[in-house]
Amino acid sequence: MKKVYSFNEGNKSMINLLGGKGGNLAEMTKIGLPIPEGIIISTQACKDYYKDGEKISKVLEDEILVKLDELQKQTGKNFGGKNPLLVSVRSGAPISMPGMMDTILNLGLNDKTAQYMIEVFKDSDFVYQSYYRFIQMFSEIVMGIDKEIFFDLKKEMLEKDNYTHQQLIKAGKEKYREITGHDFPEEPKEQLFMAINAIFKSWNNERAKIYRNIHKIDDNLGTAVVVQQMVFGNLNEKSGTGVAFTRDPSSGENHIFGEYLLKAQGEDIVAGIRTPEPIEKLKEQLPDVYIEFSKLAKKLEQHNKDMQDIEFTIENGKLYLLQTRNGKRSPYAAVKIAVDMVEEGLLTKEEAIMKVDASTLPQLLHGNFKQEAIEKAVLLGKGLPGSAGVAIGRVMFSAERADIRAMTILVREETSPEDIKGISLAQGIVTVKGGVTSHGAVVARGMGKCCVTGCAAIKINDIKREMYIGGYTVKEGDFISISGYTGEIYLGKVELSAPQFDKNLKKFVKWCQDIKRLKVRMNADTPADAKLGKSFGAEGIGLCRTEHMFFQKDKIWTIRQMILSNEPKEVKAALEKMHQMQKEDFKNIFTVVEEGTVIVRLLDPPLHEFLPKEAKDKQKMAEILGVSLEEIERRIVNLKDENPMLGHRGCRLAVTRPELYNMQARAIIEAAIECIKNGCTKLLPEIMLPLIIGAKELQFIKRNIEGEIKRVLQENNINIEYKIGTMMETPRACLLADEIARDVDFFSFGTNDLTQTTMGLSRDDSVKFMTEYYENGILKVEPFATIDERGVGKLVKLATELGRRTKPELEIGICGEHGGDPQSIDFFESVKLDYVSCSPFRVLVAIVAAAQAKLKAYKGIDYKWI
Amino acid sequence: MKKVYSFNEGNKSMINLLGGKGGNLAEMTKIGLPIPEGIIISTQACKDYYKDGEKISKVLEDEILVKLDELQKQTGKNFGGKNPLLVSVRSGAPISMPGMMDTILNLGLNDKTAQYMIEVFKDSDFVYQSYYRFIQMFSEIVMGIDKEIFFDLKKEMLEKDNYTHQQLIKAGKEKYREITGHDFPEEPKEQLFMAINAIFKSWNNERAKIYRNIHKIDDNLGTAVVVQQMVFGNLNEKSGTGVAFTRDPSSGENHIFGEYLLKAQGEDIVAGIRTPEPIEKLKEQLPDVYIEFSKLAKKLEQHNKDMQDIEFTIENGKLYLLQTRNGKRSPYAAVKIAVDMVEEGLLTKEEAIMKVDASTLPQLLHGNFKQEAIEKAVLLGKGLPGSAGVAIGRVMFSAERADIRAMTILVREETSPEDIKGISLAQGIVTVKGGVTSHGAVVARGMGKCCVTGCAAIKINDIKREMYIGGYTVKEGDFISISGYTGEIYLGKVELSAPQFDKNLKKFVKWCQDIKRLKVRMNADTPADAKLGKSFGAEGIGLCRTEHMFFQKDKIWTIRQMILSNEPKEVKAALEKMHQMQKEDFKNIFTVVEEGTVIVRLLDPPLHEFLPKEAKDKQKMAEILGVSLEEIERRIVNLKDENPMLGHRGCRLAVTRPELYNMQARAIIEAAIECIKNGCTKLLPEIMLPLIIGAKELQFIKRNIEGEIKRVLQENNINIEYKIGTMMETPRACLLADEIARDVDFFSFGTNDLTQTTMGLSRDDSVKFMTEYYENGILKVEPFATIDERGVGKLVKLATELGRRTKPELEIGICGEHGGDPQSIDFFESVKLDYVSCSPFRVLVAIVAAAQAKLKAYKGIDYKWI
Repeated sequence: MKKVYSFNEGNKSMINLLGGKGGNLAEMTKIGLPIPEGIIISTQACKDYYKDGEKISKVLEDEILVKLDELQKQTGKNFGGKNPLLVSVRSGAPISMPGMMDTILNLGLNDKTAQYMIEVFKDSDFVYQSYYRFIQMFSEIVMGIDKEIFFDLKKEMLEKDNYTHQQLIKAGKEKYREITGHDFPEEPKEQLFMAINAIFKSWNNERAKIYRNIHKIDDNLGTAVVVQQMVFGNLNEKSGTGVAFTRDPSSGENHIFGEYLLKAQGEDIVAGIRTPEPIEKLKEQLPDVYIEFSKLAKKLEQHNKDMQDIEFTIENGKLYLLQTRNGKRSPYAAVKIAVDMVEEGLLTKEEAIMKVDASTLPQLLHGNFKQEAIEKAVLLGKGLPGSAGVAIGRVMFSAERADIRAMTILVREETSPEDIKGISLAQGIVTVKGGVTSHGAVVARGMGKCCVTGCAAIKINDIKREMYIGGYTVKEGDFISISGYTGEIYLGKVELSAPQFDKNLKKFVKWCQDIKRLKVRMNADTPADAKLGKSFGAEGIGLCRTEHMFFQKDKIWTIRQMILSNEPKEVKAALEKMHQMQKEDFKNIFTVVEEGTVIVRLLDPPLHEFLPKEAKDKQKMAEILGVSLEEIERRIVNLKDENPMLGHRGCRLAVTRPELYNMQARAIIEAAIECIKNGCTKLLPEIMLPLIIGAKELQFIKRNIEGEIKRVLQENNINIEYKIGTMMETPRACLLADEIARDVDFFSFGTNDLTQTTMGLSRDDSVKFMTEYYENGILKVEPFATIDERGVGKLVKLATELGRRTKPELEIGICGEHGGDPQSIDFFESVKLDYVSCSPFRVLVAIVAAAQAKLKAYKGIDYKWI
Repeated sequence: MKKVYSFNEGNKSMINLLGGKGGNLAEMTKIGLPIPEGIIISTQACKDYYKDGEKISKVLEDEILVKLDELQKQTGKNFGGKNPLLVSVRSGAPISMPGMMDTILNLGLNDKTAQYMIEVFKDSDFVYQSYYRFIQMFSEIVMGIDKEIFFDLKKEMLEKDNYTHQQLIKAGKEKYREITGHDFPEEPKEQLFMAINAIFKSWNNERAKIYRNIHKIDDNLGTAVVVQQMVFGNLNEKSGTGVAFTRDPSSGENHIFGEYLLKAQGEDIVAGIRTPEPIEKLKEQLPDVYIEFSKLAKKLEQHNKDMQDIEFTIENGKLYLLQTRNGKRSPYAAVKIAVDMVEEGLLTKEEAIMKVDASTLPQLLHGNFKQEAIEKAVLLGKGLPGSAGVAIGRVMFSAERADIRAMTILVREETSPEDIKGISLAQGIVTVKGGVTSHGAVVARGMGKCCVTGCAAIKINDIKREMYIGGYTVKEGDFISISGYTGEIYLGKVELSAPQFDKNLKKFVKWCQDIKRLKVRMNADTPADAKLGKSFGAEGIGLCRTEHMFFQKDKIWTIRQMILSNEPKEVKAALEKMHQMQKEDFKNIFTVVEEGTVIVRLLDPPLHEFLPKEAKDKQKMAEILGVSLEEIERRIVNLKDENPMLGHRGCRLAVTRPELYNMQARAIIEAAIECIKNGCTKLLPEIMLPLIIGAKELQFIKRNIEGEIKRVLQENNINIEYKIGTMMETPRACLLADEIARDVDFFSFGTNDLTQTTMGLSRDDSVKFMTEYYENGILKVEPFATIDERGVGKLVKLATELGRRTKPELEIGICGEHGGDPQSIDFFESVKLDYVSCSPFRVLVAIVAAAQAKLKAYKGIDYKWI
């Protein structure tokens, strides 16, 4: 099998074999762009290299030399001889990766070829500069010598009186020998094979391995090596080098955007020694080149059907393109470019939909810090990105002191349901413990608030009301700025950019809605949530949690009384009060939703969560119930679970206390009847049971609830449609889904809990040790952020198949955190769920991801993020 | 299809159709025993009855009447006419069940047939007594009238001066009309159909439904009805009735054992109004009958190949058998009878093995309270049977006060690892909280100690050192007696019977060992455990938990130091100390086991469990580490998990702190090397990793451990065989078993944790609410006692198949609590595991159950417990 290719032997479809750089260069050559000639040593050669014990085989060596001969013929230049062929050598994996060996320029120079170069270019300054740069880059890239050593050496030499270029070169080579113990390789072919060897080796350096681990890149892809004829941007004033985008990557505006330097090689721009000029200036300096570049840029964009990021070099007035790739862009630009390209006729809507990374969309709704402001700000520390958005506010360490006017950022060891009100009043939340699916993060996402979780670097001193982080002491009332995109925490106020939910985004989302198959519902517990999610396009409510309703100050005492009283009369009275409150809550939500599905999950958390924690609240409770404080404490302790996640919660509450769910079912149906009578005739209330483990359990509870509903309908002399379904959040329920399906109208996977039980892993506790799991490559995805397809997903797939086998019309969806995660949505599309449900601020993400998932699944259209 | 059968048309194999009684009567008829003739209305008729809306169809009625005609011809008697045919009517389900309608005797009597009876028997007393009994039984069984009403009525009538039999009958019928509003049915056929109807209806009464639920009996079996010619034990002094066993059900001795009454009907024995005579006395009173009975009893035993429990009636010197069934017997007798019957040539060893209920065997090892002593004792309350055996001792409420000489029964709210030493010194353990697989119960079973858990009726007052239970106050130091078989707690000392591990049991177990396929290993953490289990026949250790080793007083401080210190040097020193301790522990255990497998599970519990809980211990810890008490408390809190079961434990400890498992692996291999050098050349140490969730995690840990082992082997210049395996205790591990199998030598299902995660159910917390699950028939088995085959079992089966698909030679076993449960062992045999492992005192149970499971699976031999 062939392992070495000329540029004109390849094309873009061969990226797996030729690497990203190689494939693109071949493609550009194919469409007739001015590309300096070159050859590509394939990724297969790299794989062989490792198979052969990290050696370049004789066979490969010979193949490279044959191609090198061809290159000499094509260019009319000689590698190591007169009219010298110099080359750049670069790595080029199929997927772009930092940490790999980068670029060596001017390879092929030695004392002899330097003289030949002077003969050709008549400019010894240029040649020796190039020669020294080669020595420096070779030393750095191949031998790992810090380039600063060569900068210092050059400075030192320049200060000498009798400085000559030759002396500098000699000193450089001596430095090389001093450090490596070997002579600097004079022979160009030796230089070349050392460089190729180093690039192959760099595929497995630590940084590259970690990067692949984090970005889920297959360790067996291997890298290609691109060997390309040098062109010289540093030759004279009619030469130069630059980088440009075909559109503005920040605003998305359709004009060339970039910068360049005359009399410079590519490294000069990256190194930042000289300040580059904006591309517009080239129009004045080299107008012909600018016109040609504009033409080629457009051609490349048309050809690749995407905004391009192009590297170019001008050698003595002639333009060469060195590299092109799809350009990175801001979320705002991504949407605008996608929409513009459809309107320009360049893309179909389907293609355009694939061009936007759905997960970045919340940034458009929340705004973000300005990049330049971040660069100047003091970074205190970094936690996990708990909920998207940014926030600026004053640190408060107690939920009770949170104040909406004072711009609070609530900083807590961790949050509990008692903090809900404080969270609702805060600009943002920071927790020391807990992961991206901890209580604080979930509540924050639900409320669309920015949240940073698990910032273990913070030490809070509650007594002094201050915290210590990153060497700073931050007192309560001091300003900080936090980013829920990155988890970063800054001192003081960092300047903001504005939110950007504009007409382009609206248009884009509409296309996605038209194309997607999965329904997108929202998780909403309040009328405000429901209103927000609806405005983003949610198709009803997929999860309305009833427990959050009780955490409002006045309601909590009623449920506490219901739980803690031993007097049947008191319990009954409390239940009746809860019934009235819940009915009111449901009416308010139903009224906002107006029509379609509202799935209400009956009470789920352990009752213990509702109970007073502070002494004064316990005392108050004792007074309300007329028993001793000791007795209250005893009752509270009795209700405590060792493992609350696996304890007395969910539908288990309704097995021991059927009156609880009966009350809730009554409130839901009564509220629905009133709303339907008031004109919401298309409202469809659906009742969902949490934590089911088997069919008999479900039947028992359903029988009770349906009895109650029948009574409500009789009392009101009306018949309305309603559904009863179950959450699927225990492995056992999934394993027995065929039996469970018989008695329900729908399944809703609770993938948070299902992940916890399937992996035997508490999401709150996991943050304490999961870092090591990611660092050691044991887990590649955060299983509470992106569904663990191979484990948890296997159960989802199994349960879906079993459920539909029993009842083909069964509606099946998911309402865990994964409902708003694009990669997870891909999976849910692949197993043909009917809907996903996510927090209001993730609705747009889910709509776009659902459209993309469908296109991938049905049309084979895919897209690799740059 | 035929629905009504004469006795001579059936046999024992038709029990599903004819019910247990009917099938047996037909069988006895078939082999020529003196059985009063009769007919059987089949279970199919019962099913039809329910299908037809609880009605006896005309077709069935006609079929019954045809058979009734035949019966009249066979007996030469007339139903409702001269020479009257009287019948008994009984229910007879395929499985014996209390709660069903029982027996009606003398059906067919009315004023006219009573006169005809007097004509036949010339004894009006006898006839009217029978008549009144019929009215009473019919009223009770068919109409649900309390029989006491008829006893009272009779007493009242007898006191009257002008008492006549006729008046009594009339008064009885009037009472019937007064209560039911209907006349007592005079027509015998009406009586018969009312009785049949009542029996069919009783199949679905509440008590029967609950019983079926608890005993996992199919609700659709239905009951048969047996209608049989009456014979009269109450006719004269040469008549009588009795019950006898073919062997002594308590000692197993091979002689007839039973009792009888002359001039009595069966009811008289049951009612307990007259005291029956021992069967030996019949030899004097009716020698011919006794000889015939002895002959028939032996014949029945030979025919049924089991000890029989026979009901008989003598009418005027003629012996009739009314019923026979396999007799209930004590565990001791069960073993003796099984062994004797093999030696008598009556049973094969295989058949004998099936005759013993394996789960009762621990009683033979522990002894039990004498029945007569229990009847006299004060029952204080009842918890759950946590660990088999009985114990008598003084109540102590603190593990620190437990004293082996003082005969302590430790009574705790719940036990924690800190109580281990106290438990080891106690006679028995009682906990207020926790189920049969709670910490206390597991530890107790491991130590072979009696334990009662979850006795919620106990209120402990730690300050007064007393507890309140069942209306009594029991002070520390008072004696109580507890039964780990029943969960019962008695006041004072209850007299004991002796343990009975005799030659019969040894012989029986040997047969089982020869036949079983599953290996039976023991769970043993100490040399004492290992010695005990080995004496019962355990084939090595299937689970040696390393954590328990650290709870001995002097060792706990070392591990605490290792956990809590932040000084690398201190941590290292503590680890080294632990290493030496562990090595010593392993050497001691290996030395006892001598040869074969010892599976050591590396550290499993959350580190938090080892930390000090009491203030003085925290203070001591602070002093040891030279930091503030506040700092110690902070470190302890930081290590606490919200859900310890799903938290930082198991192999997760080795991902964050690889040195821990490395140290343990070193200690195991070093200990093994020393033992092997000392002559235990066949010792095979196996290292087991807990809580694995995936292949990469396993590889990461295995790589570390194997590196350490390699170093140990090099240091010792030796090569020994060892294995590395994994526990399978998370659903994810089961789902990915094919990948995991690649890197291990064995799987060991940890079905305790696997049950918890699969069901999302904490075993300790579940006791608070599972009662309602059993009462409402939602769960039929306690999933921590008997494996949940349909849920958890599905994962076990899947993982076994996946694992073997990757590696056919993979050894697969189970080391959860289910390893000692016969029903679970049946399941493990059916999925072809290689071994089970259980606590030493369950080893015998497991050996017998494994033999039975194999016989069931391979030879189709089965046995229904009586």
